[in-house]
Amino acid sequence: MVKVGVAILGLGVVGGGTYKILTDNKEYFKKTQGVDVTVESVLEKYVERAKQLGIDEEKVASSIEEVVANPNVDIVVEVIGGVEPARTFVLKALSCGKTVVTSNKELFAKFWPELEAMAKSTNAGLFFEATCVGGVPIIRALQESMQANKILSLKGIINGTTNYILTKMSNEGSTYEEALKEAQRLGYAEFNPTADVEGFDATYKLSILSSLAFNTKVAIDNVHREGITALTKEDIFYGKQLGYTIKLLAIGKNTENGVEVRVHPTFVANSNPLASVNDSFNAVYLLGDSVGEIMLYGRGAGALPTGSAIVSDVIFAAKHAENFYTTFDNSEKGVKDTKFVSDFSSQYFIRLSVADNAGALSKITGLLAKSNISIKDIKQFAGVDGKVTMIIVTHVCQESALNRVLDKIKVLEEVYSVDSLIRLED
Amino acid sequence: MVKVGVAILGLGVVGGGTYKILTDNKEYFKKTQGVDVTVESVLEKYVERAKQLGIDEEKVASSIEEVVANPNVDIVVEVIGGVEPARTFVLKALSCGKTVVTSNKELFAKFWPELEAMAKSTNAGLFFEATCVGGVPIIRALQESMQANKILSLKGIINGTTNYILTKMSNEGSTYEEALKEAQRLGYAEFNPTADVEGFDATYKLSILSSLAFNTKVAIDNVHREGITALTKEDIFYGKQLGYTIKLLAIGKNTENGVEVRVHPTFVANSNPLASVNDSFNAVYLLGDSVGEIMLYGRGAGALPTGSAIVSDVIFAAKHAENFYTTFDNSEKGVKDTKFVSDFSSQYFIRLSVADNAGALSKITGLLAKSNISIKDIKQFAGVDGKVTMIIVTHVCQESALNRVLDKIKVLEEVYSVDSLIRLED
Repeated sequence: MVKVGVAILGLGVVGGGTYKILTDNKEYFKKTQGVDVTVESVLEKYVERAKQLGIDEEKVASSIEEVVANPNVDIVVEVIGGVEPARTFVLKALSCGKTVVTSNKELFAKFWPELEAMAKSTNAGLFFEATCVGGVPIIRALQESMQANKILSLKGIINGTTNYILTKMSNEGSTYEEALKEAQRLGYAEFNPTADVEGFDATYKLSILSSLAFNTKVAIDNVHREGITALTKEDIFYGKQLGYTIKLLAIGKNTENGVEVRVHPTFVANSNPLASVNDSFNAVYLLGDSVGEIMLYGRGAGALPTGSAIVSDVIFAAKHAENFYTTFDNSEKGVKDTKFVSDFSSQYFIRLSVADNAGALSKITGLLAKSNISIKDIKQFAGVDGKVTMIIVTHVCQESALNRVLDKIKVLEEVYSVDSLIRLED
Repeated sequence: MVKVGVAILGLGVVGGGTYKILTDNKEYFKKTQGVDVTVESVLEKYVERAKQLGIDEEKVASSIEEVVANPNVDIVVEVIGGVEPARTFVLKALSCGKTVVTSNKELFAKFWPELEAMAKSTNAGLFFEATCVGGVPIIRALQESMQANKILSLKGIINGTTNYILTKMSNEGSTYEEALKEAQRLGYAEFNPTADVEGFDATYKLSILSSLAFNTKVAIDNVHREGITALTKEDIFYGKQLGYTIKLLAIGKNTENGVEVRVHPTFVANSNPLASVNDSFNAVYLLGDSVGEIMLYGRGAGALPTGSAIVSDVIFAAKHAENFYTTFDNSEKGVKDTKFVSDFSSQYFIRLSVADNAGALSKITGLLAKSNISIKDIKQFAGVDGKVTMIIVTHVCQESALNRVLDKIKVLEEVYSVDSLIRLED
């Protein structure tokens, strides 16, 4: 039997879930894993939270120094979130040789090399399964199962809040504001929802996942990021008419031209399984050169799903003396050598408001044809006042080329406005 | 850089795929994993196969003794399949302290404790990710990611051959015989298809997966097994009318009454994502007490997907000195203490041929009601000669109770025949 002591930094939703799993399943872990885990210390400024969980007051530490000075603490679980004080606490724990398990995607996306260097210097473990896609073992899959493959691409729905909002907009025809309000009421969205709805959270996760998938540090600044706040119910309505569902997709590709990483609203064909990933569920597709396509699906957030990932890291760290570091090249040189694609290609969904006459269509298609942008689908919907809503779906083309044509289309006399341009995946 | 030498036993489809990945990606593995893998030896009675792969003739060993005597061989990959000579070869390699990586589900399901005991005795590694669901990392997920959970159930499509046949029967209205012939023509089914179509292959895999999920050795004799050979196109047709798709499901449950493990044709509601897993794709749902539902999906077989799982085990073994053994209780006592459920409960799809008069329905529903078997759906389809096809879908009930009622229903004068009884999942 391996005995291991854990400290939990932060008793919010995930910290509480982690504590619950560790205490409720203590006997089960002893029996099935040969590991006896005890929560020896917690660090939480609202002592009330500790009391509500039934934690002895004497286990509530008053500082990180007190936590790391506790000889019974082997593993420090950091579930505070955000950069500070989490960064200082994690570095402190690692510097004392304590293994760290974290769910903190922002910290990890921004300071991974620094954290890993510190962990290596004291031979401490550093585990982060819980940073991405909750209880779905995507990190372990990338580190220990897909390493026989060159990962060619990954595509995923990796933020539950926005997926809840978009599902609601899609199913109920709500506006963004209405859906956000409902998500906040149910606790799926924060009072300040920026990190989720502007795509920062998904960007942190994509940075981590694509670094592992493509074996090079992908900084958050390399990720093209767009949130969901500008989406209208009109776009969603017309997308539906053509067989597409709107999702906030995280896309990573490793091509001959370089690494391409982006987070943005995307129309997904209804035949694509990602179109059916609803509410707060997450899913990630990986395309490997040997394995082909694999998909992992599950709850991307929540006390117990994220707690499950944390506890699996705790048990893993307890059972295995060896430490597992990331082997990709995160040196200055390695990072500088990686090329990133900024002018990417995609299929596109274009919504325009045009005059109700025969000339509009022929002029628009003529301009697209001249730039070799080929059209997959066009539908026109009668409007009022002699206006027509025109939807054009293109085949794959370069975004910069498409934007140049749209500049010309915008000024046609038959065109009232180009209302939206949304990327699209089959 | 870690240098590691591999021997491949058997150069069939999977052996060839493994060789190809190891050689094609050699430089990539050096760069990204810090592991330099060389195929040092192969054991294959058809030397022609080695030549076709471009393997030096001097690397073709003539016996297992020659393979294990080669000091350059650290890891032995067994991809022969079947029990003998694979068992003898694997035990020999383990007894010499060589780490073994295998895709052999039959060997593993039947002799796991013996293999693991031998591995432990010489401190050799024993890896078997490739035994189940091809390149999908289900074994690693159960061993290293889901261990924070009590796994309550698993449900999956884990045999590609039968899924191909059933997809074909379903989409094209073919008979079983027609679909099997097409599967054989395309190489998805063997000339002797028994292992797949009678459910043996899925039983081996379910035995392995449920042993890991439920932390006790589940022997293949504990698995209730039914194949797909008795399915008719009529069943599939009527199932479709009610919104169900036929699948060969592997189901494992860990309940208060014991462990329940079964492989059989099952109607799956079209709203269940498993209904959309088509052709040779596989998918497994796991329900954990913390993580909730997660799903893994991908190609369950084939040279490169299975090769991907093998090579990931090879790299894992090369990178980590520590060995990972299964911790569940596979002693005689542990196995004897596990209770298995044989009289299980399910929803059911019943197809009957009855007289075209009002009495049939009321008598049948009366008998079901008397046994407290409640009905979810009934549909009648007009036939010829005054016969009607009646389909009854029940809510969850005990199978033994249902069979007792069916014995009474069979002898009603209004009933010509009870044509099929198929289990059903929402």
